Amino acid sequence: MKLAMIYSFLKQDLATIEKAVNETIQSDNPVLREASSQLLNAGGKRIRPVFVLLAGKFGNYQLDQMKAVAVSLELIHTASLVHDDVIDEAEMRRGEPTIKSKWDNRIAMYTGDYLFARSLENLTTINNTRAHQVLAETMVELCLGEIEQIKDKYNLEQNVRQYLRRIKRKTAILIAASCRMGAIAANVSEEEEKALYSYGYYVGMSYQIIDDILDFTASEKELGKPSGSDLIQGNITLPVLYSLEDSDLKSDLMSVFLKENKTPNDFEDVITKIKTNGSIERSFELSDRYLKKAYEALDQLPQNRAKQTLKGIAKYIGKRRA
Amino acid sequence: MKLAMIYSFLKQDLATIEKAVNETIQSDNPVLREASSQLLNAGGKRIRPVFVLLAGKFGNYQLDQMKAVAVSLELIHTASLVHDDVIDEAEMRRGEPTIKSKWDNRIAMYTGDYLFARSLENLTTINNTRAHQVLAETMVELCLGEIEQIKDKYNLEQNVRQYLRRIKRKTAILIAASCRMGAIAANVSEEEEKALYSYGYYVGMSYQIIDDILDFTASEKELGKPSGSDLIQGNITLPVLYSLEDSDLKSDLMSVFLKENKTPNDFEDVITKIKTNGSIERSFELSDRYLKKAYEALDQLPQNRAKQTLKGIAKYIGKRRA
Repeated sequence: MKLAMIYSFLKQDLATIEKAVNETIQSDNPVLREASSQLLNAGGKRIRPVFVLLAGKFGNYQLDQMKAVAVSLELIHTASLVHDDVIDEAEMRRGEPTIKSKWDNRIAMYTGDYLFARSLENLTTINNTRAHQVLAETMVELCLGEIEQIKDKYNLEQNVRQYLRRIKRKTAILIAASCRMGAIAANVSEEEEKALYSYGYYVGMSYQIIDDILDFTASEKELGKPSGSDLIQGNITLPVLYSLEDSDLKSDLMSVFLKENKTPNDFEDVITKIKTNGSIERSFELSDRYLKKAYEALDQLPQNRAKQTLKGIAKYIGKRRA
Repeated sequence: MKLAMIYSFLKQDLATIEKAVNETIQSDNPVLREASSQLLNAGGKRIRPVFVLLAGKFGNYQLDQMKAVAVSLELIHTASLVHDDVIDEAEMRRGEPTIKSKWDNRIAMYTGDYLFARSLENLTTINNTRAHQVLAETMVELCLGEIEQIKDKYNLEQNVRQYLRRIKRKTAILIAASCRMGAIAANVSEEEEKALYSYGYYVGMSYQIIDDILDFTASEKELGKPSGSDLIQGNITLPVLYSLEDSDLKSDLMSVFLKENKTPNDFEDVITKIKTNGSIERSFELSDRYLKKAYEALDQLPQNRAKQTLKGIAKYIGKRRA
């Protein structure tokens, strides 16, 4: 089953949001217009708007309010992806900064800034200070997460707690905030808003852990990049952290990291070990613990179609294997 | 006379704002803490908070409201400087190494993002949707201005109108917004708010034109960088645009731009011509026309100490020669 099937009853409202996202980033500036259309082609699952709408179903669901919040969150997410790309591109071209790549990076940085600004401007269409607060706090956390990720790259002395804090900031908080802002915009009761936030947070943690697992276990075709790409780029994810308990593997990985002019091939042995030493299974177990908490959070909410859908999404995320 | 003497009666309130700016950017993250506070401590003129406070003096001036707005504007300004440095490949800013040169572009980009986010978070401490609107719109314009500046670099086919639109977005709108947000936060009447906005806009235009002039006329010691640095980096400012009316100079400049491995020395002849062909004087004339409009905007405001101070600042800006 495809994910979109689970929330097919939101199809019409999601189409309205999609249209609004496109309209919001229109610009007279040709460079920006081009950069924006590239983003549109990149697609995206628009999963944050889905969480907004579902959370809103527990209160006074009004499409214009839902739309304002959903569009802003989607733009923040897109902006952070754009800035992520600046980082990744800088990595790939390290040592040979061509004029062209510099140009692209500069445009990418300001395209991200522009999307941030449009996101805020869009949110001012609804008069809701709390929504602004949540969005601003979420942006602060996102930035801290990105900086931590840069700082912790190639760092083999980090622990699981650091990893969890990082994915919380990088991924889980934005999903939790989507649930919370949907709830805020629909005047959902405080207790239910908290339950929805918890659900989003736990689902987000599980989602990112599985994403990090799949980077090892999915095929190159499924991923669109070589297996183990995160590690090759220096990102220490959960399966790696569990594997580092094996001091032989740790010293092997250290040697690869320290090697000059290393290629993806140099990682092959370490990646094979990580895939077969039980770390993947342990990582799935931790993901399952988060999913269990996500279900528990839903127990505090009344029975309705939105709740069933949130359950379905959690189940889908937990079963994701590619 | 020093600029700070003109608004010395604001000294205490400015100190409160300074403290709040520093508190707002505190972070548990050591890299971020050092990066942000280094930049802020390098000590800009905090001219935007000055405009906020002076505008507020025409209404119900309450320090906590003024502070929230002033801190947010100063953080937006600082964030845009950080992102500017990524673009300019600048190694020094305000006499200190830039964040980019001390860490790297990635940290610089996220430090800017972090400051943006903190700015918004800070503004949510006051419940004022219009202030949010103005800040978001200002950010959109700032980004568009930055993108235009990148796009128009090395472009000898641009005209004065494009230049004016660019400096409007890059500089004048943020100063105008400082005046407007100070007015909004103090519930100044709509008419006076408009006058203050106009004043800020015209002063901002004049300020940037003179900044662009000084890049040619001030000494290397005064500038902290070689004379003509803007042009060497490909930025086509007003004195250059006037000079391009001379087709010989235009073709000389084109040759320099097209030269491979060009050095600052290659620009020497062109820069000398720009300094002596009357373009500087014509640029000052345009700056004076903007200043005249700034004074006219003030005519619509009641006589008080704040108005005298705004006049004094305009006069100071107009006379600035280093």
